[in-house]
Amino acid sequence: MARTSEFQLIERFTSAFRLEGPGVVAGPGDDCALTRPRPGHLLVSKVDQVVEGVHFGAAFRPEEIGHKALAVALSDLAAAGAEARWFLVAIALREGLSPAFVGAVARGMARLAARANATLIGGNFTAAAQLSIAVTALGEVRPEHALRRSGARPGDRLFVSGVLGEAALGVRLLAAGRPRRPGPAARAQLTPEPRVRLGPIAGRHASAAVDVSDGLLQDLGHLCARSGVGATIHAAALPLGREVAALGAEGLRLALTGGEDYELLLAVPPARAAALRRAAARIGETLTEIGVVDEAPGLRVLDEARRPLPVPARRGWEHFRA
Amino acid sequence: MARTSEFQLIERFTSAFRLEGPGVVAGPGDDCALTRPRPGHLLVSKVDQVVEGVHFGAAFRPEEIGHKALAVALSDLAAAGAEARWFLVAIALREGLSPAFVGAVARGMARLAARANATLIGGNFTAAAQLSIAVTALGEVRPEHALRRSGARPGDRLFVSGVLGEAALGVRLLAAGRPRRPGPAARAQLTPEPRVRLGPIAGRHASAAVDVSDGLLQDLGHLCARSGVGATIHAAALPLGREVAALGAEGLRLALTGGEDYELLLAVPPARAAALRRAAARIGETLTEIGVVDEAPGLRVLDEARRPLPVPARRGWEHFRA
Repeated sequence: MARTSEFQLIERFTSAFRLEGPGVVAGPGDDCALTRPRPGHLLVSKVDQVVEGVHFGAAFRPEEIGHKALAVALSDLAAAGAEARWFLVAIALREGLSPAFVGAVARGMARLAARANATLIGGNFTAAAQLSIAVTALGEVRPEHALRRSGARPGDRLFVSGVLGEAALGVRLLAAGRPRRPGPAARAQLTPEPRVRLGPIAGRHASAAVDVSDGLLQDLGHLCARSGVGATIHAAALPLGREVAALGAEGLRLALTGGEDYELLLAVPPARAAALRRAAARIGETLTEIGVVDEAPGLRVLDEARRPLPVPARRGWEHFRA
Repeated sequence: MARTSEFQLIERFTSAFRLEGPGVVAGPGDDCALTRPRPGHLLVSKVDQVVEGVHFGAAFRPEEIGHKALAVALSDLAAAGAEARWFLVAIALREGLSPAFVGAVARGMARLAARANATLIGGNFTAAAQLSIAVTALGEVRPEHALRRSGARPGDRLFVSGVLGEAALGVRLLAAGRPRRPGPAARAQLTPEPRVRLGPIAGRHASAAVDVSDGLLQDLGHLCARSGVGATIHAAALPLGREVAALGAEGLRLALTGGEDYELLLAVPPARAAALRRAAARIGETLTEIGVVDEAPGLRVLDEARRPLPVPARRGWEHFRA
């Protein structure tokens, strides 16, 4: 990529953002960003990446690509109980994408960044054959509030934020072309909303957390494997979006295995459940109790009569079955 | 990418690294990495990216790809005067690249990481049409030792580490195919050595720094523009590798504009120059004085008789000409 063009792209991209922010000593423009960590906190870091044709397709507007690229990384910070602080963006840009496209990507990202109190501090542009955006999100958490996958204990209640299965249904709906007015499922796929305010609240109450990016069962499997426990899920308790619920058994399958929900799955000691619910309600977040952590390894999904349902076969899932 | 395959790739990749390191509370395997910042330090962060066909080609062994991906990010930390601490890696992997390939990339990266005292703390794999690796390097520096581009003052001496022009010559040599025993120029292109030990020393003496990644004149132009100064370079003083010097005027052009040197360019107050030289010599690093910072804007390149040489025309260069 010609240097002049690269500078124009950087200018186009960064101009969408408010570059001053708490703790920022030097942002874009120097060799490195310099930021001031808050005393008594851990640094929480995560890199995630979205690739054209893999994580977003022709139905996406550039603003939505920018939103999603940041959202998937912020979701992980929330799952660690962390507050988002700063982020860096590496963009591989294929030929034919205009500065206006880059500006629109930046605007979508900047709107989410503002809501999440996250400041852009650095980035990199390179030429490539395929558009991809890697976001490194940096957050902070007090050590005693940091959530990991390994903290779940038998008896902990399992809670999930928001609704499940919509983003996976959204992929199907968008495959037929972008609707004039995308419904909730399509929007869940286009502009997933990371639970940035819920994360730090969860950090004060939960014993373990994971973000539901690979499908509820997959991610619950990760959490259980890391914690050395099992879990029981009540299918009838799962929060499904209206379009997902209307699909019946297929909707349940999407909710269990669909992926890209970017909701938080929390293991919560029973004594903390009520306080967590209240704190979540105060910021307008929905939490649904969907099951319990067991001593026995493996995952069980029960129907309303508490009869075991077959756990869906899905690639990767076997990896975590007891 | 199938999940099972992704887990195998992660295992293959991470197994090349020593995952415990100073300040690491949680590394790969959780939603986020957790690290403990050192009190009294700034966090220094930088994302950089290498793309197949752009930053490396068929002549590169996978170990060299891994080395280079980390080297380019560590070079920026050094230019900020920072010590490397941790890093995250996002890999977009095209089909047909084997787990053995991924393991070899990781080994090349791990060897450099060990020398730089940098610990892998997280990453992400995704499928793509083209291989690319984005590395986010995290370092620390005391505020009083942080180097930026904006600190150069008239009268500061300009120093550069190592030699210039070799990596650009290496591109040409490697275009003809990988030699059986790559010489210094080819090696400078394949495995550039970031000045990770020199960076923190420079932080104690220099007033400004930039890493020479885009070509000496380009990067000096950045430094001068940010500092509101100009500079004079003595062509005869430039440290050229033997293969570069043998090219005469073309070698000088490569040294001035070639790019990918990953050397440090430092502006140093005259009173600090001797101490910096001594400290660099103690760790076996070469520093060459190549010119001086001027009050008058613009860059001047002088020959041995102090006659001005034409500044090479090069895209992007005009951007910074006075």
